[in-house]
Amino acid sequence: MKIEQYQIAEYNNSLLKAQERNYSFVAEKVNNVSAVLKLLQEFQVAIPSWALGTGGTRFGRFSGAGEPRSLEEKIEDVGMLHALNQSSGAISLHIPWDIPDNAAAMKALAAQHNLRFDAMNSNTFQDQPGQAVSYKYGSLQHTDKAVRKQAIEHNIEVIKYGEALGSDALSVWLADGSCFPGQLNFRGAFQRTLESLQEIYSALPDHWKVWVEYKAFEPNFYSTTVGDWGQSLLFTSKLGPKAYTLVDLGHHLPNANIEQIVSLLLMEGKLAGFHFNDSKYGDDDLTVGSINPYQLFLIFNELVDGMNARGMNHATDLGWMIDASHNVKDPLEDLLQSVEAIMIAYAQALLVDTKALSAAQQSNDVVAAQEILQQAYRTDVRPLVAQARMLAGGALDPLGMYRQQKVRENLIKERGSKTVATGL
Amino acid sequence: MKIEQYQIAEYNNSLLKAQERNYSFVAEKVNNVSAVLKLLQEFQVAIPSWALGTGGTRFGRFSGAGEPRSLEEKIEDVGMLHALNQSSGAISLHIPWDIPDNAAAMKALAAQHNLRFDAMNSNTFQDQPGQAVSYKYGSLQHTDKAVRKQAIEHNIEVIKYGEALGSDALSVWLADGSCFPGQLNFRGAFQRTLESLQEIYSALPDHWKVWVEYKAFEPNFYSTTVGDWGQSLLFTSKLGPKAYTLVDLGHHLPNANIEQIVSLLLMEGKLAGFHFNDSKYGDDDLTVGSINPYQLFLIFNELVDGMNARGMNHATDLGWMIDASHNVKDPLEDLLQSVEAIMIAYAQALLVDTKALSAAQQSNDVVAAQEILQQAYRTDVRPLVAQARMLAGGALDPLGMYRQQKVRENLIKERGSKTVATGL
Amino acid sequence: MKIEQYQIAEYNNSLLKAQERNYSFVAEKVNNVSAVLKLLQEFQVAIPSWALGTGGTRFGRFSGAGEPRSLEEKIEDVGMLHALNQSSGAISLHIPWDIPDNAAAMKALAAQHNLRFDAMNSNTFQDQPGQAVSYKYGSLQHTDKAVRKQAIEHNIEVIKYGEALGSDALSVWLADGSCFPGQLNFRGAFQRTLESLQEIYSALPDHWKVWVEYKAFEPNFYSTTVGDWGQSLLFTSKLGPKAYTLVDLGHHLPNANIEQIVSLLLMEGKLAGFHFNDSKYGDDDLTVGSINPYQLFLIFNELVDGMNARGMNHATDLGWMIDASHNVKDPLEDLLQSVEAIMIAYAQALLVDTKALSAAQQSNDVVAAQEILQQAYRTDVRPLVAQARMLAGGALDPLGMYRQQKVRENLIKERGSKTVATGL
Amino acid sequence: MKIEQYQIAEYNNSLLKAQERNYSFVAEKVNNVSAVLKLLQEFQVAIPSWALGTGGTRFGRFSGAGEPRSLEEKIEDVGMLHALNQSSGAISLHIPWDIPDNAAAMKALAAQHNLRFDAMNSNTFQDQPGQAVSYKYGSLQHTDKAVRKQAIEHNIEVIKYGEALGSDALSVWLADGSCFPGQLNFRGAFQRTLESLQEIYSALPDHWKVWVEYKAFEPNFYSTTVGDWGQSLLFTSKLGPKAYTLVDLGHHLPNANIEQIVSLLLMEGKLAGFHFNDSKYGDDDLTVGSINPYQLFLIFNELVDGMNARGMNHATDLGWMIDASHNVKDPLEDLLQSVEAIMIAYAQALLVDTKALSAAQQSNDVVAAQEILQQAYRTDVRPLVAQARMLAGGALDPLGMYRQQKVRENLIKERGSKTVATGL
Repeated sequence: MKIEQYQIAEYNNSLLKAQERNYSFVAEKVNNVSAVLKLLQEFQVAIPSWALGTGGTRFGRFSGAGEPRSLEEKIEDVGMLHALNQSSGAISLHIPWDIPDNAAAMKALAAQHNLRFDAMNSNTFQDQPGQAVSYKYGSLQHTDKAVRKQAIEHNIEVIKYGEALGSDALSVWLADGSCFPGQLNFRGAFQRTLESLQEIYSALPDHWKVWVEYKAFEPNFYSTTVGDWGQSLLFTSKLGPKAYTLVDLGHHLPNANIEQIVSLLLMEGKLAGFHFNDSKYGDDDLTVGSINPYQLFLIFNELVDGMNARGMNHATDLGWMIDASHNVKDPLEDLLQSVEAIMIAYAQALLVDTKALSAAQQSNDVVAAQEILQQAYRTDVRPLVAQARMLAGGALDPLGMYRQQKVRENLIKERGSKTVATGL
Repeated sequence: MKIEQYQIAEYNNSLLKAQERNYSFVAEKVNNVSAVLKLLQEFQVAIPSWALGTGGTRFGRFSGAGEPRSLEEKIEDVGMLHALNQSSGAISLHIPWDIPDNAAAMKALAAQHNLRFDAMNSNTFQDQPGQAVSYKYGSLQHTDKAVRKQAIEHNIEVIKYGEALGSDALSVWLADGSCFPGQLNFRGAFQRTLESLQEIYSALPDHWKVWVEYKAFEPNFYSTTVGDWGQSLLFTSKLGPKAYTLVDLGHHLPNANIEQIVSLLLMEGKLAGFHFNDSKYGDDDLTVGSINPYQLFLIFNELVDGMNARGMNHATDLGWMIDASHNVKDPLEDLLQSVEAIMIAYAQALLVDTKALSAAQQSNDVVAAQEILQQAYRTDVRPLVAQARMLAGGALDPLGMYRQQKVRENLIKERGSKTVATGL
Repeated sequence: MKIEQYQIAEYNNSLLKAQERNYSFVAEKVNNVSAVLKLLQEFQVAIPSWALGTGGTRFGRFSGAGEPRSLEEKIEDVGMLHALNQSSGAISLHIPWDIPDNAAAMKALAAQHNLRFDAMNSNTFQDQPGQAVSYKYGSLQHTDKAVRKQAIEHNIEVIKYGEALGSDALSVWLADGSCFPGQLNFRGAFQRTLESLQEIYSALPDHWKVWVEYKAFEPNFYSTTVGDWGQSLLFTSKLGPKAYTLVDLGHHLPNANIEQIVSLLLMEGKLAGFHFNDSKYGDDDLTVGSINPYQLFLIFNELVDGMNARGMNHATDLGWMIDASHNVKDPLEDLLQSVEAIMIAYAQALLVDTKALSAAQQSNDVVAAQEILQQAYRTDVRPLVAQARMLAGGALDPLGMYRQQKVRENLIKERGSKTVATGL
Repeated sequence: MKIEQYQIAEYNNSLLKAQERNYSFVAEKVNNVSAVLKLLQEFQVAIPSWALGTGGTRFGRFSGAGEPRSLEEKIEDVGMLHALNQSSGAISLHIPWDIPDNAAAMKALAAQHNLRFDAMNSNTFQDQPGQAVSYKYGSLQHTDKAVRKQAIEHNIEVIKYGEALGSDALSVWLADGSCFPGQLNFRGAFQRTLESLQEIYSALPDHWKVWVEYKAFEPNFYSTTVGDWGQSLLFTSKLGPKAYTLVDLGHHLPNANIEQIVSLLLMEGKLAGFHFNDSKYGDDDLTVGSINPYQLFLIFNELVDGMNARGMNHATDLGWMIDASHNVKDPLEDLLQSVEAIMIAYAQALLVDTKALSAAQQSNDVVAAQEILQQAYRTDVRPLVAQARMLAGGALDPLGMYRQQKVRENLIKERGSKTVATGL
């Protein structure tokens, strides 16, 4: 299933008149709208390979159909999303689910779709068939040196796969922790994890980074060894300049102020980037922007402000990825909704009158500060996002076109209705 | 693997001297210790069939070994636990995981182990092979009448299996709900669920009850259609006198005062009983008493007080069951720890000086009220619990004996190390 | 400080051109825009007298200046807000802070400002000078009959004040609960509270209602006797048809799905109305819409849908009130922001394509359901709200005009800078 | 009101027989019981001056009677507590509530009661009469240099008062933060706070420490500038070796694993000490051990283990203080209950079989690890604590003796019933 340029052009034509009207209305209110459009066009969100299939919970999984059966098909799916929205120009692989038998061929295929390979993800939270020792009680933290060694070697192997594909970052999420008081010596677990990470760190190619993700709870339900941003920062500070802290929106305790965390990590020069999703209760992995879009905007406001303060390139200096689980939606539609929500939040953040905000903050005019933020947030920026997309060759309404083209029906025809993509 | 009476007696002999010393120390402080022992002996906690195997999370499962491969073996495992602790004299089945091909034979086998069949559990949160329609978007709440009909019929079938086994309650936990705002019309979902429950209710045999369990979240991450005790009570009130609300310790929002809920449900005559476990973050399904044993005691304090106020029989008028998931422990050891924690909390609650407490409450002597509760809680009641168990024919230290007898090693020899019990 | 019609007209003139452009852009997209404008104009949010002064926390209070020193000045302040936004046409009084010495004069003053008297609020969470017995251990729940009697009589007195002013509802928020396990017998507290409420209920005039508010925690930190919607509904069901459950946004446990609660209470015909505010951690009493505006929209979506389903009048059949605490903002500016956020959420809810939503729900098209809600939410409805306000005689930008007119500076001149309004 | 040694001896005599029996029962089970008794005797918990009076919430305060009216009376009250329990041998002052007019006299008075002066607490969360600039928008974070300067100078003044009294630590809790998104530039607030702290740090005498306390929320309800342990550690690491992170049990987001935080801070050599209390919802400031005593034990288990690993002196190398608010209890009784709960948790932690625990952890025997912890926790250690206290000259049952001696009644006679101690 491939969507051709001419199809997109045709589709856009049918919406063009309305778009022009909507765009000109909002563009008139934006200072330097061309700069905004340019930033929107440059911004790309990586799609993780495991998000292309239907997810599930521990209580069950209700599979979808027409899901990708191979790495090739995963690349094709992301390519199709990118053709539609021109904002999904990267794919993030997970080893061992996505071992490339022929890296050169995969690179070529990705290039055809204008995709690059984002961070590589290792997996030491599951046992694989034929594995020598088990991760039941952790991996990099394990009391048994043999388990740690196996986990370290796996991570180094993931780096090698990534090098062959042109990736330049290793993303490490550890399920390591404990389910019961007493199970773990916290200090021992920290030290062993640190030593394991140091071995992995020393295997990083020169231009590579390692991202250390934290998570408050699940799958361990008493403690997690990289449990919050403070712990991750302790690890990445001890590791060295190539180590950064990765933030996943759903990995916090209730009510955490994530935007403040983001701001401080940026200040310290230690923010790796983001795993986007949304949640109400825990790591619910819902569609980005589906539960609390204002929070997403506030996070982007900190990102834009913090990156500008450090002269960073919005599009390339941090890692942007969706990490969600699509239990009741078509995964590709969910991804289109998620990318759209991200672009909207980013656009709103770009509209914030930072000079006025800074003045209001300076004089503690709290009412004005709120008005300034909400002025940007309440603006309907969808026409801006659509315009940037159209200019880049994408569809004015990616989800609309996806449905119009009956993409899912076509994928089912091609791949069958009993496919189950690898992943959670 | 069967543990014989003579083995228990032998084992107890080795601990008897210490037990006598410990028991006499605490017994001397207890008024009417023989009544306490009698209550402890009568109290039985049902073991759910699915808790006999190693559980997992959505991120993976690390299987155990020697797990039961059939309903017969499940009954044998519970029988063995009951032989050890004399407090696990019931088994709770889950359909379709435990469909009894020969109900009479199962009844006879259970009787041999002095077990009865507790509430029957239906399952409409997973699709089964060959099922006509899917529960992806709910079961009793579904907008499609065919799905509701299938789910209703399944529940009625579960009742029939239960009747054949001598059970007298249907336990209904619904995963029904929604993952996203807009997905569900809350009122419509409530009304459809009510009508479905009414059909099931009307199929209940005369002496049967239906228990409606609530849960705040998971596997749906935006709304749950029976989401809290208020919603469950609304359903059970509308259903009629055979319908009761079931409380699972892990099914609440953070910081909920569960003991108050228990107290009010008892006051309304609508408490079905309990699913015991413990948790720190959500429905973590950890060993009972492993995270917050004081909360467990406070709940038992309300149960004892509330049941006494209504002249209820502690052992038989409510349903008591463990509902946990054993991801990193031997499931049978975990169950022994859980039952022990329950018996300890129950024993502590029996020691509360209710007359003094009532007087302190009447005069708002908050300091004294706390002292009275903590006087009971801080007492080391383990010798009382052990004494009751020994008198009933159980082992003084069930977990100790389980390990001494190398039960797991023997089960692995019998059943192999690649077994995976049905369940979550 | 009074704002005259001609001043508003003048002010609006300066903004009219932009408003016309903005309004016509959005109006074109709205079906039946005149009906929407009419509903927006009718909708009125009551201002509580205690929100006119600067609030504080237990750690301190940083007073404002120019705050109202009397009931007259409170009425004038609300009148001024209403003149600006034409959506604050009611005031809610709190006894004993607002005892009207001359009810007829107060009624006349309110009428001059086009204000009516909303629900009357009683106070049994504080002791007043000269009070016979103390509420330290509760009021309607108290074990001492004399305390209960005093609290009942206070509530009846509040009804009488309300009758004289033309109010028709008593709003009861009880701080009653306990700080420590053991302090309270939950069932006893419930029963005593019920009996006390029954006495108050029997003193209600024919056309009056009583609203029973619930709150999860604070100022009691272990249990609250009307702690959640289930408990409140239990009370209001036992009381009778004049009793309703009042929802305050900040009175829930973390992550509660408030919109579902609202929907079910409406379904049961037992929703009294709303206390609006916003919060991140607890009963933070922040400006409405300042933390999670999407939640506010989802609540309004349920309100509109549920009221329509019962043929209710949006403006008059439920109670709408702001209940916030303004610690770091000018209280009047905060109230203007809060009313604006409410009107925006209401307008967005009115734009939801309910027919399409219902169809998406019926077919479990979760993606479409989300799109339909977010289509309404992402629309910039501020020009609609402003248009309705202008047509009703209010200012296009109430907050802008408040600042342009230097209202606070004028109030300080009139009233001094050391004023402290009564309230929390 | 002073309690004399002979009175204590007399009181103890009446309980001696039971104590001997209880003590010998438990002592027999403890290895090296004399070492345990010694550690228990050495352990001292500081009493903050503000905890001697009745607290309140933002909704009101129900005052007690007989409360201390001066610093002298506060020292006398703590002296009386210490006479009873021999575990409260320190007082922690708060400036400006406790400015000592005559430091030498206060030192002498404290010495008479065997008390030392623990950490000094500054207050920049309230405005004081006559203060030049306001802390409404923060103190050390303030955008206005004059406010920061005032706050810095206040802290330096507090150090000077402390030096005169023989204290050696400054405890800084900052309410600084924001109530609304946009109000604060997080990075700016961090940097200004850091610079302010650096100025205070440079004024520390050689042997002094500064403790930087963190708090998740309240009184600011959107962000707090020292909001979690990660932020505090960032500050204390940048400040230098005299700066440490202070943990208050109630200052976390829901479900935080505090014991893990404690363990890591100890590992980093950056733990200042503890503010003890208990809570269910937020910073509820309830009696220590009244809500979750197992958590308290788990924390002490980490403290003991972590201090032993670093060869630290339990009694003197960290700061131990109660920080609670007594709204419905006699404050002195509450403090006696709190100290008792601390001593019990400490004693239980001392009983943990650390060698066996370490072996169980090494082999991932999770069941055994839990058993080992709970073996210590379930032991009734009250007779051990009482024995240590008696040997040190304290009362076997401090709360019992307090009531027997009618202390509160006597204090009311001495001081009157309308006293209100300074504090929250």
